[in-house]
Amino acid sequence: MTDAGIEAAAVIVLQNGVDLDNKKRYTEALVCYREGLQLLFNLMKGVTDSEKKKYLRTKVEAYMGRAEKIKGLIEEQKTMGKYHEQILIENDSTGHSYKNLFGRFLDDEVTSVEVEDPYVRSFHQCQNFLRFCELVVKSCCNLNKIRLLTSRDGSVKDQTQWLETMKQNLQRYRIDLMIEFSSTLHDRQIKLSNGWTIKIGRGLDYFKAPESKFSLGFFDMDLRRCHETTVDVYHIKDVKKSYG
Amino acid sequence: MTDAGIEAAAVIVLQNGVDLDNKKRYTEALVCYREGLQLLFNLMKGVTDSEKKKYLRTKVEAYMGRAEKIKGLIEEQKTMGKYHEQILIENDSTGHSYKNLFGRFLDDEVTSVEVEDPYVRSFHQCQNFLRFCELVVKSCCNLNKIRLLTSRDGSVKDQTQWLETMKQNLQRYRIDLMIEFSSTLHDRQIKLSNGWTIKIGRGLDYFKAPESKFSLGFFDMDLRRCHETTVDVYHIKDVKKSYG
Repeated sequence: MTDAGIEAAAVIVLQNGVDLDNKKRYTEALVCYREGLQLLFNLMKGVTDSEKKKYLRTKVEAYMGRAEKIKGLIEEQKTMGKYHEQILIENDSTGHSYKNLFGRFLDDEVTSVEVEDPYVRSFHQCQNFLRFCELVVKSCCNLNKIRLLTSRDGSVKDQTQWLETMKQNLQRYRIDLMIEFSSTLHDRQIKLSNGWTIKIGRGLDYFKAPESKFSLGFFDMDLRRCHETTVDVYHIKDVKKSYG
Repeated sequence: MTDAGIEAAAVIVLQNGVDLDNKKRYTEALVCYREGLQLLFNLMKGVTDSEKKKYLRTKVEAYMGRAEKIKGLIEEQKTMGKYHEQILIENDSTGHSYKNLFGRFLDDEVTSVEVEDPYVRSFHQCQNFLRFCELVVKSCCNLNKIRLLTSRDGSVKDQTQWLETMKQNLQRYRIDLMIEFSSTLHDRQIKLSNGWTIKIGRGLDYFKAPESKFSLGFFDMDLRRCHETTVDVYHIKDVKKSYG
């Protein structure tokens, strides 16, 4: 990328950070500030003009200061058990893969994950859950347990077999998949053992179907259109570190 | 992530960078150095102990210096038209999605992409090409042309229809997909208009089949096992900026 290109990208990413910051979507803002700072940082290395260098250094310091402040705010609200962030996914919008939506909460402190979602039943819903498992396996190197609480559908005869295949597969990664069924379940939430809880109004099934098996977005969910849904992210103070 | 966790991650990433650097796999080493530096950078912000801070600053400066040197080396060899990097993908190894393999060469300078691969014919091969298209669409914001040169297989009756669907789909992103067929094609290469050429011995089809539709790695190709193949990356001096 050219220097002008890097600078233009930095401006866009940082502006996005400011917008999210203003909306109090702090964890997302932090991701943007970090990415933007990395770009400014790369840019500075190539700049020889001292005025330009000084200007960039001022920018870097300002954004670093704000990023630090946000980090403090998040920690403070987490400690008080008050952290809450809300994201609206608009109808037909794109860019909302599981990784983009909550990948920033997945880290090496996550040892177990609990998914409550009544609709992990049909073929595409079980495949959504597979995508979810792929993401947590890659993002949480200390993960050893996934608990899925969902409901049974008598008409979907292969649900148990699909989930059983995933269970066997996850064992190769030394991860236990515990599958439980409930007929009264209504809540949809993903609880991580590092204290973060993600509640997606529609659960994991908020993507629209692809038009064909050769449509862009068939594999990459960032390119897939979404149904409207609201996402609430909380941090729970008293973290239950293990289940069962 | 805890500070100790960030530090441990930084050590692993930077060590990986040094290994790649020693093997003269410079563009990959650069990615590792940048990631590792970002981790050290995040770590430093939280450190109050002045000795520790000083130690980290020395590390940051050393790796930044090496990263700058590598950047210079790559540029120099690119200018001379001599840049060549070789990667061996081992049998049954994982972590080789298209993004991991050549994502670092995709940027906003890429306006056209040329794929020569005799085997974009069967269902899964055309789906591989779809994954490739998804990646370039997301990574190259100025892309406006993809040229695919492949061969026809009389027994695969839907090849034309699948590729045609992708063509229509790409038009929504203002990208022309030009499909050409050759019966004498033997070379397999991906040419980017920013000068990089990636030659994969097996072409795009170097992934093993998943065991089932619910195996980890069905969607995320970083988790998919690979066939053995060699990848050569060149930078061509006289860049042909457009095709056709």
